[in-house]
Amino acid sequence: MKFQDREVIVFAGDSVTDADKYNTGDRIGTGYVKLIRDALTAFEPQNLYKIVNAGISGDNSADLLARWDKDVDAYAPDTVFCMIGINDVWRHFDELDPHKPLISEEDYEKNLREICKRAKKYKRFFLITPYFLERNRQDEMRMLTERYVQRLYRVAEENGVPVLDAQKAFDEYMLSRAGQSISWDRVHPGPVGSMILARLILKG
Amino acid sequence: MKFQDREVIVFAGDSVTDADKYNTGDRIGTGYVKLIRDALTAFEPQNLYKIVNAGISGDNSADLLARWDKDVDAYAPDTVFCMIGINDVWRHFDELDPHKPLISEEDYEKNLREICKRAKKYKRFFLITPYFLERNRQDEMRMLTERYVQRLYRVAEENGVPVLDAQKAFDEYMLSRAGQSISWDRVHPGPVGSMILARLILKG
Amino acid sequence: MKFQDREVIVFAGDSVTDADKYNTGDRIGTGYVKLIRDALTAFEPQNLYKIVNAGISGDNSADLLARWDKDVDAYAPDTVFCMIGINDVWRHFDELDPHKPLISEEDYEKNLREICKRAKKYKRFFLITPYFLERNRQDEMRMLTERYVQRLYRVAEENGVPVLDAQKAFDEYMLSRAGQSISWDRVHPGPVGSMILARLILKG
Amino acid sequence: MKFQDREVIVFAGDSVTDADKYNTGDRIGTGYVKLIRDALTAFEPQNLYKIVNAGISGDNSADLLARWDKDVDAYAPDTVFCMIGINDVWRHFDELDPHKPLISEEDYEKNLREICKRAKKYKRFFLITPYFLERNRQDEMRMLTERYVQRLYRVAEENGVPVLDAQKAFDEYMLSRAGQSISWDRVHPGPVGSMILARLILKG
Amino acid sequence: MKFQDREVIVFAGDSVTDADKYNTGDRIGTGYVKLIRDALTAFEPQNLYKIVNAGISGDNSADLLARWDKDVDAYAPDTVFCMIGINDVWRHFDELDPHKPLISEEDYEKNLREICKRAKKYKRFFLITPYFLERNRQDEMRMLTERYVQRLYRVAEENGVPVLDAQKAFDEYMLSRAGQSISWDRVHPGPVGSMILARLILKG
Amino acid sequence: MKFQDREVIVFAGDSVTDADKYNTGDRIGTGYVKLIRDALTAFEPQNLYKIVNAGISGDNSADLLARWDKDVDAYAPDTVFCMIGINDVWRHFDELDPHKPLISEEDYEKNLREICKRAKKYKRFFLITPYFLERNRQDEMRMLTERYVQRLYRVAEENGVPVLDAQKAFDEYMLSRAGQSISWDRVHPGPVGSMILARLILKG
Amino acid sequence: MKFQDREVIVFAGDSVTDADKYNTGDRIGTGYVKLIRDALTAFEPQNLYKIVNAGISGDNSADLLARWDKDVDAYAPDTVFCMIGINDVWRHFDELDPHKPLISEEDYEKNLREICKRAKKYKRFFLITPYFLERNRQDEMRMLTERYVQRLYRVAEENGVPVLDAQKAFDEYMLSRAGQSISWDRVHPGPVGSMILARLILKG
Amino acid sequence: MKFQDREVIVFAGDSVTDADKYNTGDRIGTGYVKLIRDALTAFEPQNLYKIVNAGISGDNSADLLARWDKDVDAYAPDTVFCMIGINDVWRHFDELDPHKPLISEEDYEKNLREICKRAKKYKRFFLITPYFLERNRQDEMRMLTERYVQRLYRVAEENGVPVLDAQKAFDEYMLSRAGQSISWDRVHPGPVGSMILARLILKG
Repeated sequence: MKFQDREVIVFAGDSVTDADKYNTGDRIGTGYVKLIRDALTAFEPQNLYKIVNAGISGDNSADLLARWDKDVDAYAPDTVFCMIGINDVWRHFDELDPHKPLISEEDYEKNLREICKRAKKYKRFFLITPYFLERNRQDEMRMLTERYVQRLYRVAEENGVPVLDAQKAFDEYMLSRAGQSISWDRVHPGPVGSMILARLILKG
Repeated sequence: MKFQDREVIVFAGDSVTDADKYNTGDRIGTGYVKLIRDALTAFEPQNLYKIVNAGISGDNSADLLARWDKDVDAYAPDTVFCMIGINDVWRHFDELDPHKPLISEEDYEKNLREICKRAKKYKRFFLITPYFLERNRQDEMRMLTERYVQRLYRVAEENGVPVLDAQKAFDEYMLSRAGQSISWDRVHPGPVGSMILARLILKG
Repeated sequence: MKFQDREVIVFAGDSVTDADKYNTGDRIGTGYVKLIRDALTAFEPQNLYKIVNAGISGDNSADLLARWDKDVDAYAPDTVFCMIGINDVWRHFDELDPHKPLISEEDYEKNLREICKRAKKYKRFFLITPYFLERNRQDEMRMLTERYVQRLYRVAEENGVPVLDAQKAFDEYMLSRAGQSISWDRVHPGPVGSMILARLILKG
Repeated sequence: MKFQDREVIVFAGDSVTDADKYNTGDRIGTGYVKLIRDALTAFEPQNLYKIVNAGISGDNSADLLARWDKDVDAYAPDTVFCMIGINDVWRHFDELDPHKPLISEEDYEKNLREICKRAKKYKRFFLITPYFLERNRQDEMRMLTERYVQRLYRVAEENGVPVLDAQKAFDEYMLSRAGQSISWDRVHPGPVGSMILARLILKG
Repeated sequence: MKFQDREVIVFAGDSVTDADKYNTGDRIGTGYVKLIRDALTAFEPQNLYKIVNAGISGDNSADLLARWDKDVDAYAPDTVFCMIGINDVWRHFDELDPHKPLISEEDYEKNLREICKRAKKYKRFFLITPYFLERNRQDEMRMLTERYVQRLYRVAEENGVPVLDAQKAFDEYMLSRAGQSISWDRVHPGPVGSMILARLILKG
Repeated sequence: MKFQDREVIVFAGDSVTDADKYNTGDRIGTGYVKLIRDALTAFEPQNLYKIVNAGISGDNSADLLARWDKDVDAYAPDTVFCMIGINDVWRHFDELDPHKPLISEEDYEKNLREICKRAKKYKRFFLITPYFLERNRQDEMRMLTERYVQRLYRVAEENGVPVLDAQKAFDEYMLSRAGQSISWDRVHPGPVGSMILARLILKG
Repeated sequence: MKFQDREVIVFAGDSVTDADKYNTGDRIGTGYVKLIRDALTAFEPQNLYKIVNAGISGDNSADLLARWDKDVDAYAPDTVFCMIGINDVWRHFDELDPHKPLISEEDYEKNLREICKRAKKYKRFFLITPYFLERNRQDEMRMLTERYVQRLYRVAEENGVPVLDAQKAFDEYMLSRAGQSISWDRVHPGPVGSMILARLILKG
Repeated sequence: MKFQDREVIVFAGDSVTDADKYNTGDRIGTGYVKLIRDALTAFEPQNLYKIVNAGISGDNSADLLARWDKDVDAYAPDTVFCMIGINDVWRHFDELDPHKPLISEEDYEKNLREICKRAKKYKRFFLITPYFLERNRQDEMRMLTERYVQRLYRVAEENGVPVLDAQKAFDEYMLSRAGQSISWDRVHPGPVGSMILARLILKG
């Protein structure tokens, strides 16, 4: 993936993107966004990019949609990467707040569709699939994740949006090691998972 | 389960038992051992018990065996509960230290057998099964856990040791909710899982 | 005591209920409310409850009444447990603030009557007696507590409100051990007293 | 009570004497020993005294006796004040460590007798009674305290040792206010109780 | 000095009175006001007093006058003790802020006169002299302090206000020991100086 | 560069390698060693490597030589990367400790020669050049660095040791941006410089 | 340089002047302003000066101009020293924020000209040159700094403003030692550089 | 005063010299030794000096003598400055530890004489007078200080040791401002006093 000099690049998402950014002075976090920013600076020093981490921990697709104008659009981005949905899935399993509404598959699809609509004005827009670091395809959270991912693919196709398949990238890794070697909770990617995500995006 | 006045009761295990005990003034931790100690004090005030938390975070069956004499036997216990094995299983998945030897099923069985041998002198001795908070029985870590549990049952039977089946207690819970509602990593039990373990033991 | 799926349950009271809730992330505290919440989650996972800790340290019956609408009624509860009064009694003994008015037995009765009036709209409403962890019935603070408890019983009877007798539950415990084995100040219940209160309520 | 220039004065006891002395730079604590030291400096500046706080929190009479030579005698004191015994009583009620032996009335008497024997070499030696801040004389802990105090009087009489009656000084106070206005646990004296103890000693 | 039950007593002054009161939960500080409050509670438990520490560190007589209505009068006191002036003197020597106006002897007298005028409505009002802990009467700061004290006596006489002479109380002490044994800076009284001030006031 | 499964890889050097490793739980630091470790895990999960960070902040070539046996050889490494020398140069400019001997070019050459000798037993051994992030080739510290680098090349050639030229990799970067965009002190590489070093090594 | 009694002296600038002033109680910082303030107090005690540190870390000439009225003029100074410009230069090299406009030489000249205009009302006004602690005159940041300094001289001459040449003072030092012996980043002066700046100003 | 390149310079003394050196990374402290070290580096960069702060807070002349060999002589100094004695004087006034022996004038003289004897081997040796920041020459601590200073002069003369008169330097300052403008306790010099001491020494 090639970027233009002075390009504004926004990464929208949840805690996978956020990566503790409020504890880093430059608000870039410690995850894949940082690796991408550092690699672009190191290997393409002739260009300057403005890179924005627009991830917020805990967000589901409805939360992201609600803050899209303020947190993404306000930067007038050239390129936007959007990875959202694992919290839509996860809350069906851990029920952290039983009185907050769950996001059904239909809600998820609707939210993504609205996001795609707003993203039409950007030069480039990518959806990245949510993923679950479990290689057993019969795992119930993995299966539910995959149903949400199917919705994502459907919306992407309708809107002509390219998809970066994070689940597939991790599946390749999980041919050799269990997802737990990356992360106990099988969602937060840690340094190894961030490497995999950064490469996925940079190879685009 | 009934205890005698002045009985010495030791809980041997890993981090599920330990429950951060070195950060609690009375070295009881914040987990199921504490609930049992408090409940016995509250509901059987006529008796005094000496309750020892002999769990150490990160221990596998070989680690526990190596410190058995010092950490369990030295208290001259009347009753011992022993729940060990999930780290034997887990390390096959997260490979925290590739240069420390893994504990195979056979090793696990051998370690348990030696523990049972040393436990013959106690008035009462119980094995509690390790467990994995995943209701999908095709999950690979659950499947491996179950193979270790079968070993545990075999050793228990040989030695006439009663077994408390923690996996079964959690399976009942997981008919209604996913294991992730108890714990993101599906092992550390948190307050809800500790309740289930405490009841399992007290109902004996 | 059985609760319905999706039931909203509020515990109103003083520091015995509060149990340091502002230092716990989920605002549930570390006392009997937490034990009840954890036990209900562990043993009735098929249901979801909304559980609210509406205790405030230091409150007497007048303080609780003053914040009833905001702190209790605003949650539209199905079931409310109310344990208040020990600070009404205590201030006669330690006189922490000689310029704040003391709550006489008559005031206490009047405040409780008003609380019962406001509670008529809830499906279920319980009064829990204040208590003093002193088995000597000639102790002056115990004697004064009992006079306040008599007022509570009178108001409960007038309004058809069921009473859970915490003093009686502790008296049973104190047949075997002094109240000081639970608490140096004979009021704050600690883990053992919280166990006794949680069982009292859950057995209802 | 008058002291001589250059006199060495030791206060032996438990937490009432200790008063958090390890958190004060001069190892004098924040209790009655500090008030006495400050008052002697302020009102008798023409003399210099060496004042030693030899209280240790949690000590009973056996603990004090065990460290008498090291903590009291090693200072070659001219005058010693000794107030010990409330922990001998208290442990019968709160049972903090059920496996540590309780100190019976007989043990207490024996320990005090040995202390008096060792104190024969000092110019002046005073016993101060333990006390319980409960004005109800039927309170069981008060009653037990009084039995220990009777033992103390018996030993004092045998050895011709003068007694300073702290219980009596507090009883006078408690004609007006409950003991809880001094201390929730009715043992640790706080600033008001320390005033009463300091006056008791200085008036000697 | 005798106080009436329910009497409101205010101590107005500078850091000698303040004594770090904002770091003490009860806003009483650690100085002579605390000793007086504790002694009155300990030795006159039959009465209740409301005791207010109205000292502010760094205040001179102009500062105190400016906040008199809000900090003293607002409490509707029965009895007021006022010790102010050492900062009026001190700033001539350490010149902490060369752009803040110094308080001349005439200003000091004028400020005290206005304070006495406002104090006419109180049942009892006492002036306490500022002091300097230097026994050499030719010391320049001591000499200047004495000139301010003469002004204080003049104002007191005009208004029939009794004076408590702190300098004299300390001079008695300094017959035996240098002022530096109380305080390196010869102003802040520490525990020994607070004892002397508390006795001065209580003996009235 | 390809590594074998179970290969032991040691990185020897100074603070560029160390990268604050004593503040990271896994002793890997936050620099290029971490990037390499994470990338190898992410992209070659089928293999396990033991990766050792043997950098110590402040070391010059004499310091590294002195601890070689203990810190490098003791791991029985298969592959060793060694980047040392910038502190040999730097101390000529900042003279942090005027009484510690400076390392001349001749000393540097001699130390490297001894290191190469000890490294003969490893399967693979690489020298990485020290570097200075200044693109002006007339800068005096850069010029001195280059003279040390020439010594390194001479020793490498004599011993048949391959060289990874870090200076050259940074020079390429500095065609577009000043060295100060990587690091204020032009030595410590920060995240961007670590990226460049990690790529240099992985591309081998 | 001589100052008048009661003179108000303001130092305007960037982090070289600021020197962490918000972490020093008197807002004077730890740099050359502190040394000047202390030396004036020590060696001219007969005078009082009001000395204001108006440096803000990170400021360039545009930032300083924008806050001139509020931060400099508002003190009604008699004498002002102004050292600004190194951040105007530096940002061309480290590009900390690619989307904040750089200050060209022309901008710098224009900003200084406006500052001189506003400074006409002060009794005395001095410009101090920015500097770079690099003795190699071919260094690109040094060369750029010198071009900005030429602009400063041009503006000073037009306005009849005296210039204190900090670069020259440091060049003298750098005849003997590299600039890195003062500061790794060759800008922040540390204790040694602050000495040099303080002497430059005091010798005026 | 001129120093030679590579000269070893030791400052021996008490807290005036020490100046919190154990909280500064370079063990130089924050007082006059630091100012001298920084000034020598700044203004004589062509030379390198080894400067040792050998002050210890609280030391009197006996304490310094006891550690002379270890703390001064062990550095093989070329030049030694020794300022000791104010604690010998001070303890007569504040009596911090009534059981530690006071240092009489005779003891002081004897200790200094022994120090001079040991200092004979150094190229240069200077005594600096202790001082008291009180301009009133009738102040009792000042008068006692002066008697100790007379002893110092006598010993210096006998041994041909030059004296730097710190008291005189401060007296000049105190013509304009009180000693309290430097220091509340009139001993610790703070930043202004350290300036005066540094100039005294550097002007030698």
